[in-house]
Amino acid sequence: MLLLTTAFACYVASNAQQARRLPVEVVSPQVNPDNTVVFRFVAPQAKEVKLSAQFDRLAVPMTKDSLGVWSVTRGPVKPDMYPYCFIVDGVSVADPMNQVIFPNEGFKNSIVEITGNTPLIHTVQNVPHGTLSYRYYYSKELGIRPVVVYTPPGYENDSKTNYPVLYLLHGSSDTEETWTKVGRANIILDNLIAQKKAVPMIVVMPYGRAYPVISKSAGSLRTWENLQEFKKDFLGNLMPFVESNYRINKEKNSRAIAGFSGGGGETLYLGLNNQNLFSYVCGFAPGMIKEEFDRNNAVPFADPQLTNKNIKLLWFGVGKEDITFRVVNEYMKVLDQKGIRYEYFSSEGGHTWMNCKLFLSTIMPKLFK
Amino acid sequence: MLLLTTAFACYVASNAQQARRLPVEVVSPQVNPDNTVVFRFVAPQAKEVKLSAQFDRLAVPMTKDSLGVWSVTRGPVKPDMYPYCFIVDGVSVADPMNQVIFPNEGFKNSIVEITGNTPLIHTVQNVPHGTLSYRYYYSKELGIRPVVVYTPPGYENDSKTNYPVLYLLHGSSDTEETWTKVGRANIILDNLIAQKKAVPMIVVMPYGRAYPVISKSAGSLRTWENLQEFKKDFLGNLMPFVESNYRINKEKNSRAIAGFSGGGGETLYLGLNNQNLFSYVCGFAPGMIKEEFDRNNAVPFADPQLTNKNIKLLWFGVGKEDITFRVVNEYMKVLDQKGIRYEYFSSEGGHTWMNCKLFLSTIMPKLFK
Repeated sequence: MLLLTTAFACYVASNAQQARRLPVEVVSPQVNPDNTVVFRFVAPQAKEVKLSAQFDRLAVPMTKDSLGVWSVTRGPVKPDMYPYCFIVDGVSVADPMNQVIFPNEGFKNSIVEITGNTPLIHTVQNVPHGTLSYRYYYSKELGIRPVVVYTPPGYENDSKTNYPVLYLLHGSSDTEETWTKVGRANIILDNLIAQKKAVPMIVVMPYGRAYPVISKSAGSLRTWENLQEFKKDFLGNLMPFVESNYRINKEKNSRAIAGFSGGGGETLYLGLNNQNLFSYVCGFAPGMIKEEFDRNNAVPFADPQLTNKNIKLLWFGVGKEDITFRVVNEYMKVLDQKGIRYEYFSSEGGHTWMNCKLFLSTIMPKLFK
Repeated sequence: MLLLTTAFACYVASNAQQARRLPVEVVSPQVNPDNTVVFRFVAPQAKEVKLSAQFDRLAVPMTKDSLGVWSVTRGPVKPDMYPYCFIVDGVSVADPMNQVIFPNEGFKNSIVEITGNTPLIHTVQNVPHGTLSYRYYYSKELGIRPVVVYTPPGYENDSKTNYPVLYLLHGSSDTEETWTKVGRANIILDNLIAQKKAVPMIVVMPYGRAYPVISKSAGSLRTWENLQEFKKDFLGNLMPFVESNYRINKEKNSRAIAGFSGGGGETLYLGLNNQNLFSYVCGFAPGMIKEEFDRNNAVPFADPQLTNKNIKLLWFGVGKEDITFRVVNEYMKVLDQKGIRYEYFSSEGGHTWMNCKLFLSTIMPKLFK
């Protein structure tokens, strides 16, 4: 539906002299009770506008009305949270009417949430909520570094308990905010704790690129150069900051590491080569290269039996259509040959944050028990 | 400068099947040591691309190279943080290569920071940093409400001190994140506390629209309907949540309220009509309508002398080119006639977040002293 531009005043208020009145104002996305979704985009001069949404395999064309509003209705869509963007004459843009943005260094996607009738594990519900804290720590090499820390409900009012900690790493080109704003890690944990399916824990979500030593255009986080610099920061600055500022149980059996994509590569490298620090190591569609297996797995491959003793859970999750599906399966073959124990979880779909939320809610109940 | 698309793998990794390779990858914005800035946008098919940046009065044309990369160099620009967007054949879009986004419900702007050689009051520096906490509280009418809370450095390690509190309200169509991501309220306070120019305080940044009772397309936050619903939530839910979850000094002389634009209207309405709760009331280019002065100021206009006694600081800041400049000055004329005391601060420029940061850093040293 179209609205008169009653919001013009506030648009000006926030965008100052540069504000430019749209011919019409639209609501987008409009999620209907039957789980269909209407997407709208105002672009009178555009020749072609498509919707690129992660519930569709391919971008779908949108149609323009007499006011220059492009729209398309999709679904019913399976309830979940999906990244999407509009492709306007070949240029991908976020939905200007949707405030929920996918935090990323390389592209702008919006997020549409189809809630459905029954709450999902990532649905914000009226249960006790933990606190999400935005903090800074300092690195001699990298400067002032951001980190987002989840503390469970009641943490502030309890001065005695020391909590187990999960270090949770984002994918390449993501930021320290992606695990909460797209992955809903905090909400998933709030709900699992309320359901007594996960133990109260602290979740540490750092920024995974060793910027500025490693440039933001240097590709995947799992490159050797980034692994070396990130390891230095993780062990030398991040862990000491977390352990001196939060009530953490410092036993290795109370320390887990998990990560997605390039951050999954970081997770396996840090977790399996520092078995004195981590007992739980979980790769979510981890980014790896076959030629680098030996170099990146020096410690576990040197003593598989000790690795089985040290690592209580080595876990892999990957979608059947995921771009990392083949390399993850090649890696597991090598683990089989070495006799290194692991758990494997295979899902439908591809290299998406829908799967990340599924992987996270699958491992949470396995941690620290 | 142009780079080969080495980041393609991570682009796919985060954007799944929908990822579409750009012909080239660019760096944007590129801030140079001489404070000039290069903006780049890849759009081979576009007929016209302009840069709309808040350091320019008008949008400026960008020029396209043979690879379809549009670019323009601006400046030297006065060091500050500026919202900007690209206007692509009439459509305003954020910079896909810039992860810093202006949190807003009605448009997508990116933020460029020109740091200059000497740190500004909003520059992230290696000083003790407070904690920014993302919390939820519950409203019977509005559901689960987000709020961002700043606690000063050392708050976590100090179980005795009760801190004064500033309630800080965003502008219309902004969100609970705008005051920190665009206004840098947390960084400004970190720096002022480190310089001993402000006392350690807690800053509470709620979401200012009474959504869903008030629709997101209902215009300014200062409409009577939103004021009534927001007041109900503020007094009935937000303040009780804050005062039961944080170590707050509950004396009215330790309670301040400030806000920008539509949130400035909310600030004056809540602050001046609840003189038992607030001693400091600061309007940053507050949104008001002359015809509503009497209705919105019932308590202060009924007893100006008591108001002068109750309110230790009534403060207004507005830019000389601000769209609210005239109405704020009309309001101050009325205050003069009534004999209500206030302080007035006038700056250059318009209705911008550059001025918001200036207003905030100007009032911080005046609070709770």
